[in-house]
Amino acid sequence: MRIVVLTGGIGGARFLLGVREHARAIGADVTAVVNVGDDVRMHGLQICPDLDSVMYTLGGAADPDRGWGRVGETWVVKEELAKYGVEPSWFGLGDKDTATHLVRTTMLNAGYPLSAVTAALCERWQPGITLLPATDDRLETHVVVDVDGERKVIHFQEWWVRHRGNVPTHNFVFRGADVAKPGAGVLEAIGQADVVLVAPSNPIVSIAPILAVPALREAVANGPAPVIGVSPIIGGSPVRGMADKCLATLDIEVSAAGVGRMYGPRAEGGLLDGWLVDTSDAGAEVPGVRTKAVPLWMKDEALTARMVAEALELAK
Amino acid sequence: MRIVVLTGGIGGARFLLGVREHARAIGADVTAVVNVGDDVRMHGLQICPDLDSVMYTLGGAADPDRGWGRVGETWVVKEELAKYGVEPSWFGLGDKDTATHLVRTTMLNAGYPLSAVTAALCERWQPGITLLPATDDRLETHVVVDVDGERKVIHFQEWWVRHRGNVPTHNFVFRGADVAKPGAGVLEAIGQADVVLVAPSNPIVSIAPILAVPALREAVANGPAPVIGVSPIIGGSPVRGMADKCLATLDIEVSAAGVGRMYGPRAEGGLLDGWLVDTSDAGAEVPGVRTKAVPLWMKDEALTARMVAEALELAK
Repeated sequence: MRIVVLTGGIGGARFLLGVREHARAIGADVTAVVNVGDDVRMHGLQICPDLDSVMYTLGGAADPDRGWGRVGETWVVKEELAKYGVEPSWFGLGDKDTATHLVRTTMLNAGYPLSAVTAALCERWQPGITLLPATDDRLETHVVVDVDGERKVIHFQEWWVRHRGNVPTHNFVFRGADVAKPGAGVLEAIGQADVVLVAPSNPIVSIAPILAVPALREAVANGPAPVIGVSPIIGGSPVRGMADKCLATLDIEVSAAGVGRMYGPRAEGGLLDGWLVDTSDAGAEVPGVRTKAVPLWMKDEALTARMVAEALELAK
Repeated sequence: MRIVVLTGGIGGARFLLGVREHARAIGADVTAVVNVGDDVRMHGLQICPDLDSVMYTLGGAADPDRGWGRVGETWVVKEELAKYGVEPSWFGLGDKDTATHLVRTTMLNAGYPLSAVTAALCERWQPGITLLPATDDRLETHVVVDVDGERKVIHFQEWWVRHRGNVPTHNFVFRGADVAKPGAGVLEAIGQADVVLVAPSNPIVSIAPILAVPALREAVANGPAPVIGVSPIIGGSPVRGMADKCLATLDIEVSAAGVGRMYGPRAEGGLLDGWLVDTSDAGAEVPGVRTKAVPLWMKDEALTARMVAEALELAK
């Protein structure tokens, strides 16, 4: 059995722990198609927050408390850069992380595509699943905001890390998406999948940038595999992160049903065949989509694996 | 009064502490023309060991025990790069240092010349003198060696740091020197100098690469200012480093007189008007060059400043 997961970073990484756990139990093969919209070049380093979150989490090296980056991280490089007065100084560039970015940037500058770089980095981390960037092309999520009374378009990281989303926000734009091609191996993975899962990642800034790659969305929407989504909203609040802010910006109801309806049924040009919501959201209606209510809190790998089993069940 | 110093890294930096001390006392202006032959790109970072040694030492941030790099340095990035299995793993890439290299590389990649980058980095370190790279062009010292029975040409850093010079060594080559132009400001500084000092740096791999830039050597050899050298050899041994190995490779006598004769008198197409040797080398003969014997051990800034005063005296 082949499972493809569309996923963002931290929440998606936690979900993937459960997918891997369940896949091991049933002998399935897992490919994660990972958002690259958060990617950014800072201080000459190409930083891929979502790929790294997934890689570190599945490699057992993520910081469980902070939720992002490496456990046992230090911050000498960041502090020194600040002492030189170079910007941006608000980004959490760890020393261990810096080594990852150096290896990645050196390979990218040598002409390797991000997919090949990711595979090389995963040689060390052995995530137990295949990690594929949604695209090898440049695709960045930018945010239309008002800062100091002025309309600006800033990188997602600046919105997220620097402003914590606390600026008047008008829209999210996926720069480069319209001409981006799916990353190496992505179309093959989707074409051969028995099921496509949509992780409970932020639908606006983690999942939407993946689907903004035209041929990727087409392959999922019109592919042979059933598509099952897992709600990132439980009882009207995001499991983690700022999905509520993002949804509200686009006037989408912050609820399991609201996100399910935003994705929409495959039969009508949407994404979903099935939609898993939390038991507290039982009764959420998404017309044209099979919904099921099960416990969605990813408290540990076993609970998350059970949730994945329910998603696969819903795909049948 | 204007003093120009031709210098390498660690020994040269210590000498410059004395030059700065004496220059403050007499109200002189100091410009250091620094060797770039050691420079190397590793892990995508442009590393300038001599410029950094001088900058950190004069900025009060050098490690006094190790002799190179930053005091309080940590090594997380280096250890992580090694865990990724990327080479070279033998180079001492510190975390604090990494920030310096990131700022430098980002500026170089943006198109700034090394001289402008150096000036920008010095905004933080306030060395109290002007630091100029010998050239803004690419110039690297390579070493002709036998490794595992095979003739190879390796970068100076590989010879120095990886092999500690312990390989059969045949020659030193200054790649790019023949077409390199003096760095921004270098010719002006030499042209306006009242004296040019040659620091007691390694004559073969620190001073020679500077003089390998044709127009730079020409400006010093035929310039208006007297040129006074300070011997890097005391009693037949180098003050520090591997000058003895380098000199022996080229069949030059490892002595104060030997190095003085190698530089040669200006009157006969050489470099020197005066040559300062240690009291233990009193009597060293360098035909055509005024020699003087004074204590050359740079035990502290005051002693080094006295040595500089003697050099200036010899220039009169």
